[in-house]
Amino acid sequence: MKTYQSMSKMELEQLKAELQAKYKDFQGKGLKLDMSRGKPSKEQLDLSMGMMDVLNSSTELVCEEGTDCRNYGILEGIQEARELLGQISEVPAENIIIYGNSSLNIMYDTISRSFTHGVMGYTPWCRLDKVKFLCPVPGYDRHFAITETFGIEMIPIPMTPNGPDMDLVEQYVSNDEAVKGIWCVPKYSNPQGITYSDETVRRFAHLTPAAPDFRLYWDNAYSVHHLYPDQQAFCLEILEECKKAGNPDLVYKFTSTSKISFPGSGVAAIAASENNLKDIKKQLKLQTIGHDKLNQLRHVRFFKNLDGIHEHMMKHADIMRPKFEAVEKVLDQELGGLGIGSYIKPLGGYFISFDALDGCAKAIVKMAKDAGVIMTDAGATYPYGLDPHDSNIRIAPSFPSPEDLALATDLFVLCVKLVSIDKILENK
Amino acid sequence: MKTYQSMSKMELEQLKAELQAKYKDFQGKGLKLDMSRGKPSKEQLDLSMGMMDVLNSSTELVCEEGTDCRNYGILEGIQEARELLGQISEVPAENIIIYGNSSLNIMYDTISRSFTHGVMGYTPWCRLDKVKFLCPVPGYDRHFAITETFGIEMIPIPMTPNGPDMDLVEQYVSNDEAVKGIWCVPKYSNPQGITYSDETVRRFAHLTPAAPDFRLYWDNAYSVHHLYPDQQAFCLEILEECKKAGNPDLVYKFTSTSKISFPGSGVAAIAASENNLKDIKKQLKLQTIGHDKLNQLRHVRFFKNLDGIHEHMMKHADIMRPKFEAVEKVLDQELGGLGIGSYIKPLGGYFISFDALDGCAKAIVKMAKDAGVIMTDAGATYPYGLDPHDSNIRIAPSFPSPEDLALATDLFVLCVKLVSIDKILENK
Repeated sequence: MKTYQSMSKMELEQLKAELQAKYKDFQGKGLKLDMSRGKPSKEQLDLSMGMMDVLNSSTELVCEEGTDCRNYGILEGIQEARELLGQISEVPAENIIIYGNSSLNIMYDTISRSFTHGVMGYTPWCRLDKVKFLCPVPGYDRHFAITETFGIEMIPIPMTPNGPDMDLVEQYVSNDEAVKGIWCVPKYSNPQGITYSDETVRRFAHLTPAAPDFRLYWDNAYSVHHLYPDQQAFCLEILEECKKAGNPDLVYKFTSTSKISFPGSGVAAIAASENNLKDIKKQLKLQTIGHDKLNQLRHVRFFKNLDGIHEHMMKHADIMRPKFEAVEKVLDQELGGLGIGSYIKPLGGYFISFDALDGCAKAIVKMAKDAGVIMTDAGATYPYGLDPHDSNIRIAPSFPSPEDLALATDLFVLCVKLVSIDKILENK
Repeated sequence: MKTYQSMSKMELEQLKAELQAKYKDFQGKGLKLDMSRGKPSKEQLDLSMGMMDVLNSSTELVCEEGTDCRNYGILEGIQEARELLGQISEVPAENIIIYGNSSLNIMYDTISRSFTHGVMGYTPWCRLDKVKFLCPVPGYDRHFAITETFGIEMIPIPMTPNGPDMDLVEQYVSNDEAVKGIWCVPKYSNPQGITYSDETVRRFAHLTPAAPDFRLYWDNAYSVHHLYPDQQAFCLEILEECKKAGNPDLVYKFTSTSKISFPGSGVAAIAASENNLKDIKKQLKLQTIGHDKLNQLRHVRFFKNLDGIHEHMMKHADIMRPKFEAVEKVLDQELGGLGIGSYIKPLGGYFISFDALDGCAKAIVKMAKDAGVIMTDAGATYPYGLDPHDSNIRIAPSFPSPEDLALATDLFVLCVKLVSIDKILENK
């Protein structure tokens, strides 16, 4: 296999002509495929349909502690739901507050509260001249959108195969008291599928922040979202590590069942130290009388416990695995050895992160779109939508069928090739 | 019937001794009754149990516009839920955004967003030296708690039988650009059960605020919560009146089904002009991917339409009416003509507002508590918990049985009498 870089101008131009013909064919097919968002497929949702039956008009709707779940009360969530979400989050139930349906909403709320009221008695961020956040890149666009809307300066931190570049993280966190947080997706990261190494997690737990109100924003979105039963990533539990390191209040951990049961109708939670939870509840009790306890009960009665969750997620994996593999197969076969793109094969999560040649991502995404395949916008994985290399593209294989994914990826690799040839020709 | 004021010192002291004996009896009874919060009773909740059956594993979970309600999407809520909540709010569906389970949470969120991001492009309140809110009194403690936590100065506005004192409202709103809002419960107000007159609503709609970002915070909590089928209060629809007055953007209207279906598991919504909704959605799309569409669907399939809601609420009324009447009967029989307290008989809503002699409310509530009957804290109906007259007490008859309410009110009137005698004796 010859790399594109090593090909002559003439070889490249001849190849381009062949590929352009194929691209024209694709344009004629009238494709309408979407690989842009991490949305579960219908088949995955069908697996949770039993949840629609566990509560009905003859069910006892009283939780274990004796409260009628139909009525007001229990700000922090019913005990059995705190236990279930605690198990998913790998923390004791007493470190959990259950919220509504969306962990994204808890993250927004956490930033918003810090902005308006401060963290544990420290100055509200709205009274500070400058607040900064560290943003491992590539990362999750909705994280960046939250910090951006509060005028928080975002500093990109490169990801490594073990997690964020910790030398850089330590340097910023120790020396700049304007740095108030870092967005982390520690397991099966969005979009790369990287799981933080033990050393990375321990270095996070041992941070010595200049700002006393610095926190890790630990988005544990994919904790049980494995693709392979026998190759499950393991990530050290951060609350426990922070406690051991003498930094018990350093972290907010977020989770939800959006991609376990139903997106939009799941249950979300925050896990944190007693001090942090006390601080959160002071505000939460003004925000609401309580979240949806019936939906909490519904989840507990359906999944029962962590075994129930794992069993369920293995059924998800059986649906998701062929989708990932359909994409990976085309990427490997069509791009392997050409030197025009690379990706890390994920063991879990919802995404494949593709790195094209510098300066090609936007053009590839546009070209794919023009032939009917929607990808996440190039740049979306970077703060402010600005990928300095214009190279990263997030592929979301969860929603379409494996057949559609293979077809969409066929087009995608064609676009990668065509755009790469143009880029290389520029410099020949 | 002789008023207490007209009794001699000796008569009062003799009466006091008799009442003290009765109070001792009550203390011996070991009562444990709660008239403090507007919480629906079990019987009311039972009326909505059919809602637990409308969705099950064989139900089509697709909304009218064709979206799978189990998956992500539809930020503003499914169309049929916007229609239902629109009917409850008396506005077109396109003026509605559906949120999660709590209108209180929408109100907090609305204030918080104005604080962090401003209203429709105007300066965020966190950048202003001073923000003020008008607070009709007596009013709802949770409203006041929200404005207090954002450091907003609260100005009490006395209620009249037609709504807030509009001369005062107009004066503040026209002349002080720090005044950014007013809390209103226009129908069956909390706690007095007063419904704003047509003139009051029209004067609200015709306000000429000094602040362009002034809004009416119109908490339509009890729009369909009548007590009597044949004596239903009517309140002019404020969005329409604002539009007619050339002030279409003046109002945010809040509603929820918390006290229609299940508190904590209901559906809440905001109604506002197109400009306001656009402004709200700009932020909302960063806060969440969407709210719980299955619960929206559940509500629509159960209640169907406004007729379904009204029919359901008449069953609520049949449960609530005897409770209100049990309290009113004791108040009338035991306090009528004594000159030591008064209340307005409500036609709907969740509360009875009792006005004791000045300087007596705290002592009455404490005395009732000491004999096992919990009332809302005296002062709670005023900003900062400060009732300048120390006279208003909110009675919440919704949760206990009529029998328990009669008993609790027996004790309550005894406390009113005893505390009033002490107060009168002070000045004899």
